[in-house]
Amino acid sequence: MSEQPAETLTDLDRARLDLRCELLTSGLLIESSVPGLYGRSGQFEDIVDGIDRVVRAAGPGSEAIRLRFPPMLPRSDFERTDYIASFPNLTGAIHSFTGTNADHARMLADRSEGKSWDGYLEPADTMLVPAACHPAYPMFTGALAEGGVLLDVYGYCFRNEPAVDPARMQAFRMHEFVVIGDPDTAANHRASWIDRGLQVLDDLGLEATAVVANDPFFGRAGRMLAANQRNENLKTELTIRLYGDLDEGTAVVSCNCHQDHFGATFGIETSDGSVAHSACVGFGMERIALAMLRTHGSDPRRWPAGVRSRMAL
Amino acid sequence: MSEQPAETLTDLDRARLDLRCELLTSGLLIESSVPGLYGRSGQFEDIVDGIDRVVRAAGPGSEAIRLRFPPMLPRSDFERTDYIASFPNLTGAIHSFTGTNADHARMLADRSEGKSWDGYLEPADTMLVPAACHPAYPMFTGALAEGGVLLDVYGYCFRNEPAVDPARMQAFRMHEFVVIGDPDTAANHRASWIDRGLQVLDDLGLEATAVVANDPFFGRAGRMLAANQRNENLKTELTIRLYGDLDEGTAVVSCNCHQDHFGATFGIETSDGSVAHSACVGFGMERIALAMLRTHGSDPRRWPAGVRSRMAL
Repeated sequence: MSEQPAETLTDLDRARLDLRCELLTSGLLIESSVPGLYGRSGQFEDIVDGIDRVVRAAGPGSEAIRLRFPPMLPRSDFERTDYIASFPNLTGAIHSFTGTNADHARMLADRSEGKSWDGYLEPADTMLVPAACHPAYPMFTGALAEGGVLLDVYGYCFRNEPAVDPARMQAFRMHEFVVIGDPDTAANHRASWIDRGLQVLDDLGLEATAVVANDPFFGRAGRMLAANQRNENLKTELTIRLYGDLDEGTAVVSCNCHQDHFGATFGIETSDGSVAHSACVGFGMERIALAMLRTHGSDPRRWPAGVRSRMAL
Repeated sequence: MSEQPAETLTDLDRARLDLRCELLTSGLLIESSVPGLYGRSGQFEDIVDGIDRVVRAAGPGSEAIRLRFPPMLPRSDFERTDYIASFPNLTGAIHSFTGTNADHARMLADRSEGKSWDGYLEPADTMLVPAACHPAYPMFTGALAEGGVLLDVYGYCFRNEPAVDPARMQAFRMHEFVVIGDPDTAANHRASWIDRGLQVLDDLGLEATAVVANDPFFGRAGRMLAANQRNENLKTELTIRLYGDLDEGTAVVSCNCHQDHFGATFGIETSDGSVAHSACVGFGMERIALAMLRTHGSDPRRWPAGVRSRMAL
């Protein structure tokens, strides 16, 4: 963080550093030596839980199947999604040691000389979860019941993108409502959650804007994928200006239609035998918490009564 | 899982497979293609949350600093604990792609030929959290206030140990109460939580036994570390017999004194300037949930009224 000389900082850099400093000084977040990796205080967790109450109140309730996955998923499932092709730089592969006593001794000898010891590790059969809903799709290989399925998924995601901006964390939680069904059901789910998502944010006293968006596909080939996604209007983000007019705003909710991507990948069929489509809305819990702190101030006891009451704070 | 011919299965193997099958068939856990990696149903999460209410009721409440960490910690902190020396085989190192467009093209070409692509990745500056309390110690480098600190930490841990036994998960949650202070405070914390932990389990209607234990240190050198730990009586596990008399029981709670391990590693001093000692009690949330299901049956609605009421189910 100290590598960039102060004189080259933009106003936006400075605003991000200021917010980061505020969050750490107040103790809401806990600094680590890695940019984008933070501990959370109990107070920060209470805010996240309060936001989640408002998210759940707007959600499908008991109509949805509630699923909670750990932060790792099988490597074989990760492979099938082709995530490594589209987002190699965000990927988290897990490696571990499978060697003998003698290998271990050699690894520790290298390590004591300050050399890298990762070469002694082997790929494990797990990867880090890049989006909360990814571990769910393999459950539905085969034919869906009529009407498809509606899922409520909440969990930790990982993206390898060290950043000063506290809104860009490497480890963060996403609460998602996911539909897998026919093309219309998926398209409607995405579309309807633009307004429903805006309403959730409005209930929290936040001013948000819906914008056409694309995923950050990697490299030259990725630019075409991103353009397609925009042209087909498959992704809408609800953004909030954490930094005034210094940037275009921070995406706090994302409404996505995957068309047949996961259906084809995991062999999921609708009841009439065609490839299933899917769509999800994802609430970025830490980003919404930052937006709350930015909008209503750093002391939740002084937030608007209506908001506090909806959050059951 | 199907690699072992049925005739070589022991009774214990069979009992573990039976429990696993029961949990998956009832939908409480969700199978993945990786042994020891499961999704959780909403009902399973309700059980875990209910257990946590009983754990918290026995805990230090607002006397403790509540901290919640993501499932990753800085590689530099991980390095300092020497975990890679003691538990290399359980370690989860995170690797990611940092190359160019051309590297990416080569990686995808290898991948399309079915070759491993992990060689194109580089070690990231993060590792998986091996025990819930590990990310907390670096916060306290320097001098502690008089009396030390008491922490309440809850989070996901990772251990790379694929197993059929559903009680041996690769990703699981641990709720810990941790003390960092003078040697007596640490020793007393560990000792007092043996009875307090047994009481929590008794409140949940579980029959547990306290046994002297050691960590599974790796290899030949590790055997000596394990023997020292037992001789100095630093680790007591509270075990429950999930499989009758087929094994010695499963550890569901662990009471540990680290002596000056973390204090020396992270430069933590007591108010009088000596190296701080630390101790923790860790509640293995998934294992306690399995013990509840094994003891009271697979339908929480039919669990003893007193237990249900304490869990607020």
